Amino acid sequence: MPADASPAPRGPTFTHRLRARFAETDAMGVIHHAAYLGYLEAARVELLRAVGHPYDGVRASGIDFAVVDVQVHYMRPVVFDDQVAVELWVRAASRAAFEIAYVVRVGDRRCATAVTRHAAVGPDGHPRRLPAWVTELAASEEHLPRR
Amino acid sequence: MPADASPAPRGPTFTHRLRARFAETDAMGVIHHAAYLGYLEAARVELLRAVGHPYDGVRASGIDFAVVDVQVHYMRPVVFDDQVAVELWVRAASRAAFEIAYVVRVGDRRCATAVTRHAAVGPDGHPRRLPAWVTELAASEEHLPRR
Amino acid sequence: MPADASPAPRGPTFTHRLRARFAETDAMGVIHHAAYLGYLEAARVELLRAVGHPYDGVRASGIDFAVVDVQVHYMRPVVFDDQVAVELWVRAASRAAFEIAYVVRVGDRRCATAVTRHAAVGPDGHPRRLPAWVTELAASEEHLPRR
Amino acid sequence: MPADASPAPRGPTFTHRLRARFAETDAMGVIHHAAYLGYLEAARVELLRAVGHPYDGVRASGIDFAVVDVQVHYMRPVVFDDQVAVELWVRAASRAAFEIAYVVRVGDRRCATAVTRHAAVGPDGHPRRLPAWVTELAASEEHLPRR
Repeated sequence: MPADASPAPRGPTFTHRLRARFAETDAMGVIHHAAYLGYLEAARVELLRAVGHPYDGVRASGIDFAVVDVQVHYMRPVVFDDQVAVELWVRAASRAAFEIAYVVRVGDRRCATAVTRHAAVGPDGHPRRLPAWVTELAASEEHLPRR
Repeated sequence: MPADASPAPRGPTFTHRLRARFAETDAMGVIHHAAYLGYLEAARVELLRAVGHPYDGVRASGIDFAVVDVQVHYMRPVVFDDQVAVELWVRAASRAAFEIAYVVRVGDRRCATAVTRHAAVGPDGHPRRLPAWVTELAASEEHLPRR
Repeated sequence: MPADASPAPRGPTFTHRLRARFAETDAMGVIHHAAYLGYLEAARVELLRAVGHPYDGVRASGIDFAVVDVQVHYMRPVVFDDQVAVELWVRAASRAAFEIAYVVRVGDRRCATAVTRHAAVGPDGHPRRLPAWVTELAASEEHLPRR
Repeated sequence: MPADASPAPRGPTFTHRLRARFAETDAMGVIHHAAYLGYLEAARVELLRAVGHPYDGVRASGIDFAVVDVQVHYMRPVVFDDQVAVELWVRAASRAAFEIAYVVRVGDRRCATAVTRHAAVGPDGHPRRLPAWVTELAASEEHLPRR
């Protein structure tokens, strides 16, 4: 598997904090690996809100950011009740798709890194051109508000 | 993102069939991308059973196959009530880890491809050597029972 | 809490079988209590299919069966890889709502009983009259196909 | 179904706030009914923390609060990105079990009410006597910290 899922951010990042839920644990006593995808998504949603483009507004404008690719590299377990920090940044964008990179931490432990790739699609499921603000977001990571 | 997540199998594969549940849909009207990880896992569990090593037996022997990496490439949506076929094969293994590759289909539509990487860990969360049968499984894919 | 959640069926019932998934376990080592709602829903979907009214057809006709009430009584744990049998029957219906009762078993162990109540709603979320076949289903449980 | 699932609190309540996630939506465009059980559980966990008995400490002491009964009455949909307030209080307890009642709100809309019943169990799954502080919590709801 590619090392590509754990890049270092070039510029500032946005951080979303959440609490690991009991419902997300599994019989190994840790947070189930699929639950991380919900964490990444919640973090994306907060990132969009923070840059002034809440996702329900995006959806109301007739666009969804469909998930095209997901890569997660799991390094150390997250357990029930951990305070999780998801650090993320838009790392690349073309006219049709963009990538977000993530580092999932608990305290100063790096628990996982991830990359997701998204395409804009209309209500019919067909591709749409990305809104200009997404492309700009990738070009100038320093515009991301800290949190 | 790497093309690496959609390899062609060298030999025979195992297929697990399941029905897409309403609880797995999202507000885009399709199966949520995180639900695929549950599909892959259910397929792995059936593969282990089919090769004579049911996963609860593996766990009873003091080993878990922790998920170390996940890559999913989403190509076409799966929707509620679709009959999903997950084709999978062990494609590589070292002494410490193994990889499984997947193709997710609905009818003759290829909906997603995926690769997961797993390490054997003990109850203490520390690495264990892979059971020999896992390594053999990767070496001789033709031993996979069809279904 | 009412004993009302564990009724005995008056007539024949329908049974849906499924395998408990690892993704549905929790850190207590058992299937998480919320996962049962997915089991009940999957069983309802198969019941509708079995009586000739697949749920995607119902939805295509502009109706959803919104969940209005859920009651579950948990008796014995379901664990990973258990073969679960969900027995269910439509136990009552008015012009606007219907109830389904459930018994969740693993082998001959009764693990849970449940009742869900549903109302027909249109795409606007407003109530619709129940299709006649639902009301008839409640009136004549003996029409349920066995499985 | 019993009206019993929507009681009025006798005394002060505790409130947990959370954001409805996209992963929790379904193809009806609303939060899936099973996701509410995760909301209630997250709220319980915060309540225990607020009264000085964090749930991982409870678990470390060899006790789990197994869910014995769940009742949810769904009144109005919660949708993606809603800010959800879960108000809850311990409403009754015996030596072996306790009940928590909930009101789920979005703004001033009452979206759902619920009751869960819990028993203390040991690592062997067998019943344990409830810790005294739980019983006291039910007896004197005014001890609940506001939030």
